[in-house]
Amino acid sequence: MNVNGEHYRTIWTKEGDDKVIQIIDQRSLPHEFVIEDLRSVDDFCVAIKDMHVRGAGLIGATAGYGMNVGALEAPVNEFYDFLVDVGERLKSTRPTAVNLQWAVERQLNGIKFLSSLDEVVEATFKTAKAIADEDADYCRRIGDYGVKIIEEIGKRNNGDVVNILTHCNAGWLAFVDYGSATAPIYAAHDSGIPIHVWVDETRPRNQGARLTAWELGQHGVPYTIIPDNAGGHLMQHSEVDMCIVGTDRTTYTGDVANKIGTYLKALAAKDNGVPFYVALPSSTFDWTKRDGVKEIPVEERGGEEVKYIQGLHEGGLKKVLLTPQESNAANPAFDVTPARLVTGLITERGICEASEEGILNLYPEKRK
Amino acid sequence: MNVNGEHYRTIWTKEGDDKVIQIIDQRSLPHEFVIEDLRSVDDFCVAIKDMHVRGAGLIGATAGYGMNVGALEAPVNEFYDFLVDVGERLKSTRPTAVNLQWAVERQLNGIKFLSSLDEVVEATFKTAKAIADEDADYCRRIGDYGVKIIEEIGKRNNGDVVNILTHCNAGWLAFVDYGSATAPIYAAHDSGIPIHVWVDETRPRNQGARLTAWELGQHGVPYTIIPDNAGGHLMQHSEVDMCIVGTDRTTYTGDVANKIGTYLKALAAKDNGVPFYVALPSSTFDWTKRDGVKEIPVEERGGEEVKYIQGLHEGGLKKVLLTPQESNAANPAFDVTPARLVTGLITERGICEASEEGILNLYPEKRK
Repeated sequence: MNVNGEHYRTIWTKEGDDKVIQIIDQRSLPHEFVIEDLRSVDDFCVAIKDMHVRGAGLIGATAGYGMNVGALEAPVNEFYDFLVDVGERLKSTRPTAVNLQWAVERQLNGIKFLSSLDEVVEATFKTAKAIADEDADYCRRIGDYGVKIIEEIGKRNNGDVVNILTHCNAGWLAFVDYGSATAPIYAAHDSGIPIHVWVDETRPRNQGARLTAWELGQHGVPYTIIPDNAGGHLMQHSEVDMCIVGTDRTTYTGDVANKIGTYLKALAAKDNGVPFYVALPSSTFDWTKRDGVKEIPVEERGGEEVKYIQGLHEGGLKKVLLTPQESNAANPAFDVTPARLVTGLITERGICEASEEGILNLYPEKRK
Repeated sequence: MNVNGEHYRTIWTKEGDDKVIQIIDQRSLPHEFVIEDLRSVDDFCVAIKDMHVRGAGLIGATAGYGMNVGALEAPVNEFYDFLVDVGERLKSTRPTAVNLQWAVERQLNGIKFLSSLDEVVEATFKTAKAIADEDADYCRRIGDYGVKIIEEIGKRNNGDVVNILTHCNAGWLAFVDYGSATAPIYAAHDSGIPIHVWVDETRPRNQGARLTAWELGQHGVPYTIIPDNAGGHLMQHSEVDMCIVGTDRTTYTGDVANKIGTYLKALAAKDNGVPFYVALPSSTFDWTKRDGVKEIPVEERGGEEVKYIQGLHEGGLKKVLLTPQESNAANPAFDVTPARLVTGLITERGICEASEEGILNLYPEKRK
């Protein structure tokens, strides 16, 4: 997508040296645009854990390349066991994101029967590239399906602006390109449907206020940042026509783990008859879990992320303390929205009901 | 209540000069404890509008003293019209808070039949003091009634810690003393019931993270600050035994206007069977409004409060920019929680159902 008019993806091989992977260090956005080189498995683990990269699809794509860099570090003998270990390290960085596991498993499955390290290096590179390309392609298709919902609402609004609320960043910054929740938004904007996006700031890490706002602005999509607290009020007053969010893991029964606070917006949408859609590529489905609230592990991050916040002050990035110094703070990173609150899932294969039946109709190969 | 072990109220007459009113400038909390002198109607209007003081009860008490200072500024003739004007100015500072209107009307009613300015000065001072004393007394009584609910839950928990979630600051800082939502909490803590408070940080002005955290800490009540997004997740996982919040205006039918985001917590409480209580002195009832969502005006504050935040950096207070510089931000300050989501109202006369019948049974003199 656009950065100052130039096309970027969120992860790519360095020009002239495809052993080096480059990413946008998202911690400095929107104030600074920093490109970072990743050269070792350690670099990859830090980049995922400390959220230089984040978001379901991008975490998967990063893990894909991380496995390739792992192959470059592997001993000529025992490379398979070494890569299983690398995979474990990558998976442990963010426990809720299912794409991490999925990308690591896909890499390991692809090399199971290879006998030389050279082949493994080549295969993992190809698979990493395939994961990234597929991610972009799937998101584009999510856009093609999702835009029809927006178009429909626009018609019912007699051509008035369609107001869409989103939470966190499920934009292109969370994937390789296009984004999941944002793909229909970009597609609608590009096809001339008048839209406006309510951007939840998404405390404590403010992915909405920092990232979604930035990428929508770069693309020219009209938006307004709101505190996470405001969405219910806006829905009560008919200021929201639909919600679209992403997800970090969705059970095959339709329960949606996504950034903390999503559940509250889904409750408000239900209470006010506002359609609530979740956009996801199929890599985000967890085909093993039935009850999202009970079974999906929720990452508990440090309280410092709640107590301190970084922002721009006199041209530099400064971190300020928001609370009494001695306060405790809790920081669960995700919550689970039960399927009953979800209007539909927008996938790369089309739109389905958030239910076992609806999901398995789109993915019949997953029927047991 | 306690500030470093010393007893304070939130508003008082300066020792040796009762023409000067002193307040705690709450904008600097929790990092600095600043006392401010208010000497003119202008001072009072700025202090309320720019939220040096805030909170239902304290705004009412401040308006009460503001009318007294208005009397000191009034021309010997035409003092009544002058004070009507002062009242209008005070009321316009914060459109949602009904206590403002209530305090101004009470002052004007008290001087309607007085003929000399001297009498008016004396009467408005007495009324201002009465408003403040009553506010503290009513909050204390709210504590006496509310503590029984906590006690009951503690018994059902077999003496385990009772986890209480609160939103914004309806603490003593929002009143003259004790607070509304916090009065039962302080009463429970003081009587030895083990409690722990989940403090919503309450974006964008962080009254929870700054003020509620600070006053609970000063009093020794265990608490944990959480992002506003986290409450639903905690309720899904049985980490919340009850919610208590305050209100800025409650209709006689039980619809509750309170700090933006309250509605989302009430929805989550309902969805998880968590009791949701609202604590209020009767000065916060609006006896003229039937439908809270439709009829209560919601103050729209500036977007800068969302885009910038103040915190402590290297020993000084600094304001940092959180969003792209050019972003729009919306900042509705309140939302309305429909009565159907409220378990009960805790008032100075006892606990009632959030319904016309329940409220008028406690306040039969308001039956038409």
